[in-house]
Amino acid sequence: MNFKKVVVAGGGVLGSQIAYQSAFWGFDVTIWLRSEASIGRATPKLARLKDIYVDTLEAMKTSTVYPRGFATDKLSDEEIDAMKERAIKAHDSLTLTTSYEEAFKDADFVIECIAEDPKQKIAFYTEMAKYLPDKTVIATNSSTMLPSTFASYTGRPEKYLALHFANEIWKNNTAEIMGHAGTDSKYYDEVVDFAKAIHMVPLCLKKEQPGYILNTMLVPFLTAAEYLAANDVADPETIDKTWMLGTGAPAGPFRILDIVGLTTAYNIVIMKPEAKDPNSNAGKIAAMLKKYIDEGKTGINAGEGFYKYK
Amino acid sequence: MNFKKVVVAGGGVLGSQIAYQSAFWGFDVTIWLRSEASIGRATPKLARLKDIYVDTLEAMKTSTVYPRGFATDKLSDEEIDAMKERAIKAHDSLTLTTSYEEAFKDADFVIECIAEDPKQKIAFYTEMAKYLPDKTVIATNSSTMLPSTFASYTGRPEKYLALHFANEIWKNNTAEIMGHAGTDSKYYDEVVDFAKAIHMVPLCLKKEQPGYILNTMLVPFLTAAEYLAANDVADPETIDKTWMLGTGAPAGPFRILDIVGLTTAYNIVIMKPEAKDPNSNAGKIAAMLKKYIDEGKTGINAGEGFYKYK
Repeated sequence: MNFKKVVVAGGGVLGSQIAYQSAFWGFDVTIWLRSEASIGRATPKLARLKDIYVDTLEAMKTSTVYPRGFATDKLSDEEIDAMKERAIKAHDSLTLTTSYEEAFKDADFVIECIAEDPKQKIAFYTEMAKYLPDKTVIATNSSTMLPSTFASYTGRPEKYLALHFANEIWKNNTAEIMGHAGTDSKYYDEVVDFAKAIHMVPLCLKKEQPGYILNTMLVPFLTAAEYLAANDVADPETIDKTWMLGTGAPAGPFRILDIVGLTTAYNIVIMKPEAKDPNSNAGKIAAMLKKYIDEGKTGINAGEGFYKYK
Repeated sequence: MNFKKVVVAGGGVLGSQIAYQSAFWGFDVTIWLRSEASIGRATPKLARLKDIYVDTLEAMKTSTVYPRGFATDKLSDEEIDAMKERAIKAHDSLTLTTSYEEAFKDADFVIECIAEDPKQKIAFYTEMAKYLPDKTVIATNSSTMLPSTFASYTGRPEKYLALHFANEIWKNNTAEIMGHAGTDSKYYDEVVDFAKAIHMVPLCLKKEQPGYILNTMLVPFLTAAEYLAANDVADPETIDKTWMLGTGAPAGPFRILDIVGLTTAYNIVIMKPEAKDPNSNAGKIAAMLKKYIDEGKTGINAGEGFYKYK
C-alpha cells in the first residue's frame, strides 16, 4: 500500500473522524468540502476531536482497557505523551479546501463521506473524475448504498469500493470493506492495508451486500425486538434482560436502539410499504417509535430514549 | 404461592434439570415417567446431575462468579458445603413413578416436559386431568408450542400456562412465563413466585408469542448470519468478529449456533416451504448446514461445528 496523500470528501460526523484518525496515524490528509459554510461547520468538529483525542489518550494512563483505535498493548506514560503530541500535530496538519483541483490533483486515496443522496454522490464523482490522476483509489463510506451504483461515474471502477466505518472510530474500530463485481482485488487489498494502518480491524466482505455484515444482522434483530414491544408482548426492559441473560451480551436491543437513535430506527421502518397500515407490524413499530420521538425521547444523545441517561 | 408438591412430567434433558433444581431449592418433587424404560433413562441423568451440582458448588469456593441459579452473593465455604449436602439430599429425595395416580393425586404444580408432539401432549393432559385435584396449576415447558393449543385438555384452562427454561438451568437461570388468553393472573403470579423460589429470573410475557421473547429475536438474527455465510458474503469467523466488535457481545452468531446445535438450526430452516428450492436463501442455508452435519460437525457437543472444541 503506497497511499500517502489521503483526501476525505465531506466533513460530517464520520468524515471528520476518518480524516482525524488518518492524520493521527501519519497520513497527509486533506478534507474537501462543498462550500465555505461547510468549512465553517467542520472546523469546530475538528477542534472538538482534538480535545477528545488528547483527553482520551491522557485517560489511558490510568486505564487497563484502551480505545482499540489507539492501542491494544500497555503503553508507558511517555509513549502516551508522545501520542498526545501526535494528536495535536494531526489537527494542525489537516488541510481544508473547497477546490477540486487542490484536493484531488495528486490524491492517492479518496474516502467519500458526503450526503446519502445518490444525485449528490453522482455529481461529486463525475466532477472529481476530471481532476483525479489515474493512480487514485476511491472508497465510499456510504452506509446504505452499494458501490456498484456509482462505480461507472468514478472513471476507474476497478479502483472503487466501499470502506465503512462506525461512529467514534478511535473506539469502535471496525472497517467493513466491500467491493463491487468490478473491483480489482489488488486495490481491495490496498484498502485493507490502509484500514490496518489507521488501526482499524478490517472486516472483509467477498461480495456486495446491502447493509454490509453488521446491519444485515442488526436490522432483523432490532425489528424483532421492536415487534415484541409494539405488540405489547413484553416491555423493553424485560426484552433487554432476556437477551442479556440468554446470550451474555452487555446490552439488549432497546439499549442498542437508544445508541442508534430512535429517529434512524423510525426512518428504516417507514421505508417499508406496509408501515402505512397502522395494524401491520411495521405500522405498530412506527407508531411506538413516533410516540417516543414526539416526546423528544430520541435516544442517548437526547438524554432519554427507552431509558433515561441523565 | 403455596406450592409444595411439584410434579415434573418427563425426564429428558430439561425435565431432569427442572426436577433437580426444584428439589434442590426445597420442593417435594416427583418425576412422572411414561414407562419403566423412561425411568431407566432418567436415573443416570439424575445421578450425573448430582455430580454436576456437587462439583459446580465445590468450584464456587475458588470462583468470584457463581452460577446464577445457585447464588449471586459471595458465600463462605461452610455455606457452600451446606449447599452440597442439600444437592445430595435433593437427589435422594426425588420420587420416580409411572403411576398417574401416585404422581398427580395431590400435586400442587405440574411442569409438563414431555415430547414436542401435540398428539402425545393432548393424550397426556387428557389422562392426567382424571387424577388431578382442583387446586393443581399446570405449566408446559414447550419451546415451540402455545399453551392455547392444549388449555382445553387440562380441565383447568385458567390454571394453565407456559414456563420455559433454558438448558443448564443452574447457570442459565431464565424462566420465560407466558399465559394464554384464558390464564388467570392469580395463577400466573404463583408461577412467577415459584420461578423465583428456584432461583430463576422470571421473564414475563403479557400475551402468547411463538418462540417466547428470546427465540423471537434469536431466530431472525441467526438466520441473517446464516444467510451471509451461505451466500458467501463473508466467512463465519468474520461475521462473528463483526458482531462482537460492533455490539460488544461475547459471542457471535456462529458460536451461538454451535451451542444451539446445527441439527436444531437445520430443522428450523427446512420447516420453511422455500427451503426445497436450492436457489432460495433458505435452501442455501439448509445446504450449508447439511454439509457440516454430514461431516459430523453438529456443534460444541460433537467437539466441532463452525469452530473446533477439542
